[in-house]
Amino acid sequence: MTTEPARIRPPELGEPYLLTPGPLTTSYEVKRAMLRDWGSWDDEFRAMTRSMRSGLLDLIGPGADEYDCVPIQGSGSYCVEAMLGSFVPKDGKVLVLANGAYGLRAAQTMACLGREYHLLDKGDYLPPRGTEVTEILQADPAITHVLIIHCETSSGILNPVEELADAAHAAGRKVLIDSMSAFGAVPLEAQRIKYTAMVSSANKCIEGVPGFGFVIARKDELVAAKGNSHSLSLDVHAQWATMEKTGQWRFTPPTHVVAAFLTALAAHAAEGGVAGRGARYMKNRDVMVAGMRDLGFETLLADRWLSPIIVTFFCPADPAFDFSAFYDAMKARGFIIYPGKLTVVDSFRIGCIGQMDEHVMRQVVEAARDTLAEMGVGSAAPPAAALEERKKLAA
Amino acid sequence: MTTEPARIRPPELGEPYLLTPGPLTTSYEVKRAMLRDWGSWDDEFRAMTRSMRSGLLDLIGPGADEYDCVPIQGSGSYCVEAMLGSFVPKDGKVLVLANGAYGLRAAQTMACLGREYHLLDKGDYLPPRGTEVTEILQADPAITHVLIIHCETSSGILNPVEELADAAHAAGRKVLIDSMSAFGAVPLEAQRIKYTAMVSSANKCIEGVPGFGFVIARKDELVAAKGNSHSLSLDVHAQWATMEKTGQWRFTPPTHVVAAFLTALAAHAAEGGVAGRGARYMKNRDVMVAGMRDLGFETLLADRWLSPIIVTFFCPADPAFDFSAFYDAMKARGFIIYPGKLTVVDSFRIGCIGQMDEHVMRQVVEAARDTLAEMGVGSAAPPAAALEERKKLAA
Repeated sequence: MTTEPARIRPPELGEPYLLTPGPLTTSYEVKRAMLRDWGSWDDEFRAMTRSMRSGLLDLIGPGADEYDCVPIQGSGSYCVEAMLGSFVPKDGKVLVLANGAYGLRAAQTMACLGREYHLLDKGDYLPPRGTEVTEILQADPAITHVLIIHCETSSGILNPVEELADAAHAAGRKVLIDSMSAFGAVPLEAQRIKYTAMVSSANKCIEGVPGFGFVIARKDELVAAKGNSHSLSLDVHAQWATMEKTGQWRFTPPTHVVAAFLTALAAHAAEGGVAGRGARYMKNRDVMVAGMRDLGFETLLADRWLSPIIVTFFCPADPAFDFSAFYDAMKARGFIIYPGKLTVVDSFRIGCIGQMDEHVMRQVVEAARDTLAEMGVGSAAPPAAALEERKKLAA
Repeated sequence: MTTEPARIRPPELGEPYLLTPGPLTTSYEVKRAMLRDWGSWDDEFRAMTRSMRSGLLDLIGPGADEYDCVPIQGSGSYCVEAMLGSFVPKDGKVLVLANGAYGLRAAQTMACLGREYHLLDKGDYLPPRGTEVTEILQADPAITHVLIIHCETSSGILNPVEELADAAHAAGRKVLIDSMSAFGAVPLEAQRIKYTAMVSSANKCIEGVPGFGFVIARKDELVAAKGNSHSLSLDVHAQWATMEKTGQWRFTPPTHVVAAFLTALAAHAAEGGVAGRGARYMKNRDVMVAGMRDLGFETLLADRWLSPIIVTFFCPADPAFDFSAFYDAMKARGFIIYPGKLTVVDSFRIGCIGQMDEHVMRQVVEAARDTLAEMGVGSAAPPAAALEERKKLAA
């Protein structure tokens, strides 16, 4: 007999669960950490910044001493732009591995910066593979960096980051990783995956509230990044150099959000770090996917590619199904789900991250069951076109 | 006999008052608004964003219908960069009116963007004047925009924004205003001051918590700004266009900080808007400056240039005075003050903004009096060099 971990408490103020890829449902303790004010120049806040930076570095395991952590004010996309603008020299060239909105946004960022890139666009959900990377790098010696999206939340696919990084590394190119929605729940260990820099955000798997993100980068690359940036605000080198010198953020930090994040980091450690957090999310996913499949829903991806972050389901073919009504009915039952982002077929997404456990995921499935019944949807099976689409993935 | 307004409650959790130009002391109600989670895609949050944008537009008075408000994630400096990058065409040229760190940072931003600028650097605290602007614009027809710092918190000077904007406008140039620390307490009415765009931040005179800022810009200029930006994240046009189309922020907003800001905006209106907020801050300044002068402290600026935002005092000449010890002793008494930013003489600053009233300011003066006695400082009078410095201002 095993003892079950204590159930996670529902939102204290009764708001719906956020089954989305962030902002997500955070604990009341995390939010309560925002009930006081801090001076950003004061010693106390500087100590909080130090503690946060070292706590995040701990998550990449042995070899972390060659890296440093630089928080950046703003959203996750600000961090991706900061990483691309700071670590890719003005005459560098990036191979962008895209299979969804976030990969395409990175390519758009490179275009906006006026720097060279090669876009490998795999469409809505097909994973880029190491062999493809090897071929492209062989054909184009001008490419200096490879950008990998760790978990592409457009489809929920967990890309083969180690395979891709190995291919780039073998070809002598540098690796940049957008691990926005995965870091903290999916391992990204410095000793296994050779990367120049990666970015993630406060309001993803560490379960903080939104307001900043962070770059984890090799110290030698942080030094070398001087003068690369196209932007004063998004210059990772300058932010790092100021923090090293003064212990302060260059410009006003979101003090309350940082305080919340420290509480979130402590809870992450108490849960067993990346392994513990990842285990809960995987269980969330498994329980939720099994339940939804029981109702007749089908996932876009085969099990092999399903991330423990967010899962895409096809909308049912039954004409009684309407996504907007489904969304509202699920919200009325206490669950905010997420619309789909596929271009070919209708879909929706359910997130597995945040302050939720398998008990909550069972309630989600029950809510979906009740909603289908209420809408008069006989079967949740997807249209034939959706299954055709999925076949491409297996091919 | 007049009835006094209710006293402002001290920080609920006993933390020190922040006598700084932001982050500042906010009300407990503002912070309590952060105790729940919102989905950024959900209707409820979209309504909050709408309400915030129109509430901010109300503050510029009649003529606001020609303007729109665009919130931008990140710190105030992000907003200044976003404004410069979005409203100044790539072949434009900006006259930067600097008299302190923030003006110089704007010039640095232009240099980073690789766009033309002319810097009028008045040093630590001298105000730029309309006649100077007229002369420079006459001599350089390539200048398209003039950047005015409304309140330069380096010295606490309130620059003559109307005089400067009038001079620019008379010469047919466009006006950009950094009203970071002044907006919401010092009038900036669209009908009196003709500007293309202005920026401010959540955690200044509206008394929200830090995490985003906002641009208020003419709608025709927002349309025309398409394609100007050097940055994907800091593109004001793109943020505006997305908000107009979907009601959403382009990238993840700091949801909790936005919720806090809405509560702050409601309190701002209840206090009588810009006039009411400004009146309290002026009273704060007057009571505090009078008390400090009674102790022998001298202000850097003559009364005419003193802003109701933050005031610079010279450090006493008495060798028993040590700023670091003074800071610590003031903090132990519940007040976090701010170090100075002058290059020539030692100084410190005391802010007048945030959840504080004249009663608190009297306590600040008492704390300074006790601290001087404890340190054995006989007189708070500044060194002769400081008074020499001040003479330049009068000249």
